[in-house]
Amino acid sequence: MGEPFRHNLRVRYGECDLQGVVFNAHYLAYFDTSLNELLRAAVGSYRAIHERGIDVVVAEAQLRFHAPARFEEELTLEIAVARLGTTGITTTHRIAREDELLVDGMLRHVMVDLKTLIKTPIPDWLRQQLEPWTVEPA
Amino acid sequence: MGEPFRHNLRVRYGECDLQGVVFNAHYLAYFDTSLNELLRAAVGSYRAIHERGIDVVVAEAQLRFHAPARFEEELTLEIAVARLGTTGITTTHRIAREDELLVDGMLRHVMVDLKTLIKTPIPDWLRQQLEPWTVEPA
Amino acid sequence: MGEPFRHNLRVRYGECDLQGVVFNAHYLAYFDTSLNELLRAAVGSYRAIHERGIDVVVAEAQLRFHAPARFEEELTLEIAVARLGTTGITTTHRIAREDELLVDGMLRHVMVDLKTLIKTPIPDWLRQQLEPWTVEPA
Amino acid sequence: MGEPFRHNLRVRYGECDLQGVVFNAHYLAYFDTSLNELLRAAVGSYRAIHERGIDVVVAEAQLRFHAPARFEEELTLEIAVARLGTTGITTTHRIAREDELLVDGMLRHVMVDLKTLIKTPIPDWLRQQLEPWTVEPA
Repeated sequence: MGEPFRHNLRVRYGECDLQGVVFNAHYLAYFDTSLNELLRAAVGSYRAIHERGIDVVVAEAQLRFHAPARFEEELTLEIAVARLGTTGITTTHRIAREDELLVDGMLRHVMVDLKTLIKTPIPDWLRQQLEPWTVEPA
Repeated sequence: MGEPFRHNLRVRYGECDLQGVVFNAHYLAYFDTSLNELLRAAVGSYRAIHERGIDVVVAEAQLRFHAPARFEEELTLEIAVARLGTTGITTTHRIAREDELLVDGMLRHVMVDLKTLIKTPIPDWLRQQLEPWTVEPA
Repeated sequence: MGEPFRHNLRVRYGECDLQGVVFNAHYLAYFDTSLNELLRAAVGSYRAIHERGIDVVVAEAQLRFHAPARFEEELTLEIAVARLGTTGITTTHRIAREDELLVDGMLRHVMVDLKTLIKTPIPDWLRQQLEPWTVEPA
Repeated sequence: MGEPFRHNLRVRYGECDLQGVVFNAHYLAYFDTSLNELLRAAVGSYRAIHERGIDVVVAEAQLRFHAPARFEEELTLEIAVARLGTTGITTTHRIAREDELLVDGMLRHVMVDLKTLIKTPIPDWLRQQLEPWTVEPA
């Protein structure tokens, strides 16, 4: 059983809105950053995925907003692989400020051929390299 | 029974990513734009909401990605009010290119006091003004 | 002698920052939108440029900020072609709210081969199609 | 004589465009991030500036694009204070990938009262705290 992959980022000025908090769409971009960081940790670089002729496209996203993040705060982003189907990758996400959960949610991606963008099975080498961060679905 | 509110936007260059399609987080920003346009249609301007001492904060978002939008395409954005609770506003969203559905999903907002950001009941005048775009939940 | 090309856009919520005004980097994205709209007006679509095997890359940008734009305001964007060199395209930009100038500046682009991204002369057909919006430099 | 302040950032997927490179407007947002990081280094946090009742607004920006940055690359951002007038702050910027200069430019800000946004002199304590990164103008 794996555990979530963690990385940090600091909220940028231009990501905050009139309410003084991170604009909601940026959290979805943060989730995307988590996936990229996870793939870099697993495979060395996102580029390495492309060099193997594959890519992922997003199929579904869910976000629940519990409390706002503010300018200059350092956030902890967690991502875990909750399900690896034949072609589908479900990741669960948590964004926290110290111990306070701010946003959680999920992304579902589909593995595709880099050129044709047609569905293709997740290769075994990738499954293995994602294992340290693959958890039982909640 | 109401029907969805519609508006259009053209995809900007800077919204498209390496895959040649709109980056996923921008669709959530598009949903937000739909809500703002709906409120402008209902009340005259978003500012008018603020002048009445209220605002909305997002609590939940769901998106399903069916097909990608590309640079320069004109999209049709639909939003409908699916549920008006005491303080909660659920809207459903569709983004299409001509007759092809690209993205759909929902947003749930909570009405808050503009100053304190504490939950406050949706005022009757706003319920009435949203009626033309209030539909039965699917 | 030509005159500036004009188009309008409404400021989006997510483009405004903590100060309640459009975040400065978005004005540079607005300038980019003006160039795209100009090319669409001149050639029919930006895609038509790509289909001819050429593209532009930005080499220089200057912006002067005179007054802020705010959420929900409708802005008028002007762009004019101030200089067409062998490979260089200089455009001047103005962003106004009614008669009030908010931001002005310039962009300098270089025409490149779409595939190699190597400099290539601006084709005559494009010079001709840009003529209605080509002005004497200030 | 001071020297530039340096920090790093990794290019995010959503910041890259159809050409496979960072979209130009994001470099202006990167410059802004450099200023914020500089102020944090100088004063402890940007918030500390606000708590003293002051803020900065941007008056001018210049960018020269020498070579593109790509997805996943780690960039080094440099900022130096080139001039401190009565109310004006001119900073010079460089963005590099290892030893290769990608983008350089300048920002000119004006110090303002946080509430009224009216020009106010740069306080002496801030001048002193910016000294380590204040250089002779080029």
